[in-house]
Amino acid sequence: MTAAPTATPAERAAMRRALELAVTRLGRTSPNPVVGCVLLDADGATVAEGFHLGAGRPHAEVEALAAAGDRARGTTAVVTLEPCAHRGRTGPCADALLAAGVSRVVYAVPDPVPGHAGGAERLRAAGVEVVGGVLREEAERANELWLTATRLGRPCVTWKFGGTLDGRSAAPDGTSRWITGPEARADAHQLRATHDAVLVGSGTLRADDPHLGLRHGVSGQPPLRIVLDRTGSIRPGARVLDDAAPTLVVVGEPAARPRLPHGHEVLALPETGGRLDLAALTAALYERGLRSVLLEGGARLAAEFASRGMLDRVVAYVAPVLLGGEGRAVLDGFGAGTLSEALRLQLDEVARLGDDVRLVLRSRPLAGGAEPEVTS
Amino acid sequence: MTAAPTATPAERAAMRRALELAVTRLGRTSPNPVVGCVLLDADGATVAEGFHLGAGRPHAEVEALAAAGDRARGTTAVVTLEPCAHRGRTGPCADALLAAGVSRVVYAVPDPVPGHAGGAERLRAAGVEVVGGVLREEAERANELWLTATRLGRPCVTWKFGGTLDGRSAAPDGTSRWITGPEARADAHQLRATHDAVLVGSGTLRADDPHLGLRHGVSGQPPLRIVLDRTGSIRPGARVLDDAAPTLVVVGEPAARPRLPHGHEVLALPETGGRLDLAALTAALYERGLRSVLLEGGARLAAEFASRGMLDRVVAYVAPVLLGGEGRAVLDGFGAGTLSEALRLQLDEVARLGDDVRLVLRSRPLAGGAEPEVTS
Repeated sequence: MTAAPTATPAERAAMRRALELAVTRLGRTSPNPVVGCVLLDADGATVAEGFHLGAGRPHAEVEALAAAGDRARGTTAVVTLEPCAHRGRTGPCADALLAAGVSRVVYAVPDPVPGHAGGAERLRAAGVEVVGGVLREEAERANELWLTATRLGRPCVTWKFGGTLDGRSAAPDGTSRWITGPEARADAHQLRATHDAVLVGSGTLRADDPHLGLRHGVSGQPPLRIVLDRTGSIRPGARVLDDAAPTLVVVGEPAARPRLPHGHEVLALPETGGRLDLAALTAALYERGLRSVLLEGGARLAAEFASRGMLDRVVAYVAPVLLGGEGRAVLDGFGAGTLSEALRLQLDEVARLGDDVRLVLRSRPLAGGAEPEVTS
Repeated sequence: MTAAPTATPAERAAMRRALELAVTRLGRTSPNPVVGCVLLDADGATVAEGFHLGAGRPHAEVEALAAAGDRARGTTAVVTLEPCAHRGRTGPCADALLAAGVSRVVYAVPDPVPGHAGGAERLRAAGVEVVGGVLREEAERANELWLTATRLGRPCVTWKFGGTLDGRSAAPDGTSRWITGPEARADAHQLRATHDAVLVGSGTLRADDPHLGLRHGVSGQPPLRIVLDRTGSIRPGARVLDDAAPTLVVVGEPAARPRLPHGHEVLALPETGGRLDLAALTAALYERGLRSVLLEGGARLAAEFASRGMLDRVVAYVAPVLLGGEGRAVLDGFGAGTLSEALRLQLDEVARLGDDVRLVLRSRPLAGGAEPEVTS
């Protein structure tokens, strides 16, 4: 094996910082990824930092270069995603880095967008030293929603549920407040804030009259609220139609369009077998620039996504409670007939939140999981 | 507040060591607790150690005193349970400590057995300095099975199950091998080894033909195997009737007694409503000296224990798998009708085991939980 160029400890520390900066923007950059950038001088000291604020705003590298001004010359740019070589709403970052006289570029994740790759190659051709794959796993995690969406061509779908140790989301009489404790409920609102949209099915819409906004002291831009309402029968006074955030009401094409208060919108979709076509739904959401959808209810809708291979991630809040066999199942109707048909996920993370446990799982490995941490 | 005598750092370290020694005997001392003892000299150096091997053998203090011989004089005895003041199969430990000239005694948990308490008082009356409650929580945990049994007057019942994230123990066709991974399955055998008995219901007996012995490289004295077989219809060739360990076959009083191979035994119990009387069962097991029972199957039996308030602890192995609503429920028929009737447990421990998660829960707080760590 020949020794590949590797990142220095200062560059790895700077990559951690760049990732910290990047994730502050989760849920606010779509259709773009979250990206952070740190410029280091020859001694490994930070010259400037930048991160991508969101679509239409400069990329992270450009933000950092602007903050550095003339001091950018000769620096090392540490960036969480491979600098782009394409001209989108902003110029190619690779060219901006070259123009500023950056002498070395360290990045974590190769750009997965078809037609976008090539930034590393362009920089290398211009004589800049380039090291890729640094802290790739951490960076894949930070951008997991966007990377999944970009690779699949539809929003990354995360199913969030709260349930008992024996897999129940409510008692037989429908009571469910509160199965999980305040820490888990607050965490679930943080989770909302990192997603572009929150989605519930018509059963949840009618049974719970959910609001789907940010509460528990979580601030920031609220996600788009999406409710499936195939028959177009949403009540005008539904809580989800208040002015806390825009709401998209998805109806079946045969249904009459409901009249909604100002600021909300109806989307009509084809039906298949008397159900809304979920592939058409996710295609339409992707087309609108959404890259992440948090599926919050209910048990049948989650099963529909699961049976179509469209559950990408699961965030489960498990409470130390037993409800027994008559309670409502967290997942209803997925219907693996035998164990080999079950959906086997990868456990990513386990954490205790007050009296509850949060499990984070994904249905596919991170793309960079099997690759070496540092490549040249 | 007046300053209470407190344990020194060396004594706390010795208590940790005494607990380590004690727990090596879990599952082998019933009807006695696990106990460890360390004797320290005036400089806090260890003079001798001892632990209780099991019923009929010397108590931990006596083992340590024997190991120390003449060097016991003037030492501090650090012991995980209050020295006894009663004369059982062995003499009172309080007297043995006095006779050996021990000058100070530090213990963790007060003796909860009626008629046994008083060791601390007897020692104090004889001029020995006594500090109780040191590392009490850790020590309560170490002896949780025995303490629970002693306080309740029946064996501590721990329900162990493996299931999916959505609370299923098998697919609709009964397939369940393997939902959890090898690490969780090996851990479950370790768990068996720390219990006096393993219990399954007749449904599990007939459906799974379980063996209930120690495998996965776990050695030691296997727990008593107990199978509920109300109608006395166990097959002579059942795996649980091999010679790996003794088995207790529990039948209803009206049933014909099955003929069992040598080494196994039948216990006939009254029935209530066509079911074996579980209170009579646990009373009979306690009478036989059993202090801990691991309930391994099935879903209905666990529900019966739960609905009678007889589930003391739960060890759940949760696999990152979704089976959906037609899978077999881990808990069947407990039947809380509304959330306030649910069984709310306390989460004690969360750990990742390979791809699975182990949760340990209890239905009542540890007795010493709210008390100060160090009392005089």
